[in-house]
Amino acid sequence: VLLGIGDDAALLRPAPGTELVATVDTLVEGRHFLAGADPRSLGHRALAVSLSDLAAMGAAPCWALLALTLPEADATWLAAFARGFGELAQRHGVALVGGNTARGPLNIAVQLLGSVPQGAALRRSGARAGDAVYVTGTPGDAAAGREPGQRSAALRERCEFPVPRVTAGQALRGIASACIDVSDGLAADLGKLATASGLEARLQPLLLPLSEDLLAFAGPQRAVELALSGGEDYELCFTVPPARQAGLAAALPPELCRITRIGTVETASGPLDAAAEGFDHFRS
Amino acid sequence: VLLGIGDDAALLRPAPGTELVATVDTLVEGRHFLAGADPRSLGHRALAVSLSDLAAMGAAPCWALLALTLPEADATWLAAFARGFGELAQRHGVALVGGNTARGPLNIAVQLLGSVPQGAALRRSGARAGDAVYVTGTPGDAAAGREPGQRSAALRERCEFPVPRVTAGQALRGIASACIDVSDGLAADLGKLATASGLEARLQPLLLPLSEDLLAFAGPQRAVELALSGGEDYELCFTVPPARQAGLAAALPPELCRITRIGTVETASGPLDAAAEGFDHFRS
Repeated sequence: VLLGIGDDAALLRPAPGTELVATVDTLVEGRHFLAGADPRSLGHRALAVSLSDLAAMGAAPCWALLALTLPEADATWLAAFARGFGELAQRHGVALVGGNTARGPLNIAVQLLGSVPQGAALRRSGARAGDAVYVTGTPGDAAAGREPGQRSAALRERCEFPVPRVTAGQALRGIASACIDVSDGLAADLGKLATASGLEARLQPLLLPLSEDLLAFAGPQRAVELALSGGEDYELCFTVPPARQAGLAAALPPELCRITRIGTVETASGPLDAAAEGFDHFRS
Repeated sequence: VLLGIGDDAALLRPAPGTELVATVDTLVEGRHFLAGADPRSLGHRALAVSLSDLAAMGAAPCWALLALTLPEADATWLAAFARGFGELAQRHGVALVGGNTARGPLNIAVQLLGSVPQGAALRRSGARAGDAVYVTGTPGDAAAGREPGQRSAALRERCEFPVPRVTAGQALRGIASACIDVSDGLAADLGKLATASGLEARLQPLLLPLSEDLLAFAGPQRAVELALSGGEDYELCFTVPPARQAGLAAALPPELCRITRIGTVETASGPLDAAAEGFDHFRS
């Protein structure tokens, strides 16, 4: 950062030999959170969504810009929001280099810039027929954390303070052939990856990694549904060619994060159905 | 642009030897525009605000990301908005590389990325005592264009379709010692430049370039007030050291844009008053 907040724009120096990765995400009251939501969670989530996008590209996050629209200048709210945002930013070495505040209905837009070595970015479109499909962590927990009822503190935490897979994404460079982050639900997002690669995903539901908390809260059948369609997991779903599967365990050791093989991508059996978005439900 | 809209993030390759310039700006209904505002104007203005920030840094704009929150998917509105945004983007070679749409109260956040040669960025803080102060164009027109009454079509155009000084900003590299764009009003913004440089601005109101349209609409006294405090002009206010003033006319010929010398920056006569923000009203 050559010049941060305080001039007309931020002035940044990307490292030589790198490509720039840029994403923008918005949280809107009534859509992504309810009125009265914990501002510390909102600050965390606003950045986590974008960190997850960069993780899915295998990028290292560097700089964030925040466009914050607020109904009123509430110092307590702002302090908690800044704490949630700032703690996560610090954990990943992200500098807040620009911002804009305006008065209006609550709206939080975060732009995040990061870098990858030239040619090393993970795309959705790189999978080849026969590649294995993996997912990090235990999808479905965040969706369960949003449901009313006897959800555990752990499930609520997964929903309110999701952990983006920043380190895992970078570790997958040179290993994964394609990668996407799970924001809309595992089935939909895997479908997008398969479609972008011109393939069809074959997912084995029995292999889905379901957390004990999710199983206790939702039972086995609903747990599978939540894992497939819940959304906002911010896990990574990625493909690995057969020749690179031996290197996967070394690149992503269990202490970094849990990964589970859940299926394969294959040549489409027929014309790709746009509605199904490349996802062949429950075929294995 | 290596990879635009459609993956988890955009993948961009900055030119070697350049620094990255980043800014974010928001337009909010009820604050920056009224309900029912012309969507083509909103698309134009949303990008113009950020283009003006980059112009003030002497940067060339490259890539935009758009976070658009809309109450409903109105195809007619969206087409007009995209036309206003797209026409201005095309004129300045800006590629829209990322976007996010959400449902909610109308909110438009634009992130713009650009580049400057290493070390060439114009900052607010580079002015030295004795530098001359200049402004491009005719400030105050946009503010008059927002007022009710018999404003001319030209004044309305200045308000609804402001022309950011993108080429002028780049031409000022190596000439201007400091630069800021006029978004909050010439007096306030010149004051920010002077303060950032540890100086005091001395502005000569009789030198202010007032357009004939502004004078006809507002009369001489109100015209000066609007030129000083109107805001949203998106002109550039900059300082030039005595030794470089000969080069200014060649760098910014009249056919590129009108420039007018309106005062100087000087060593502060006393402690800088934070409330006055470095601006010594009407002292000459």
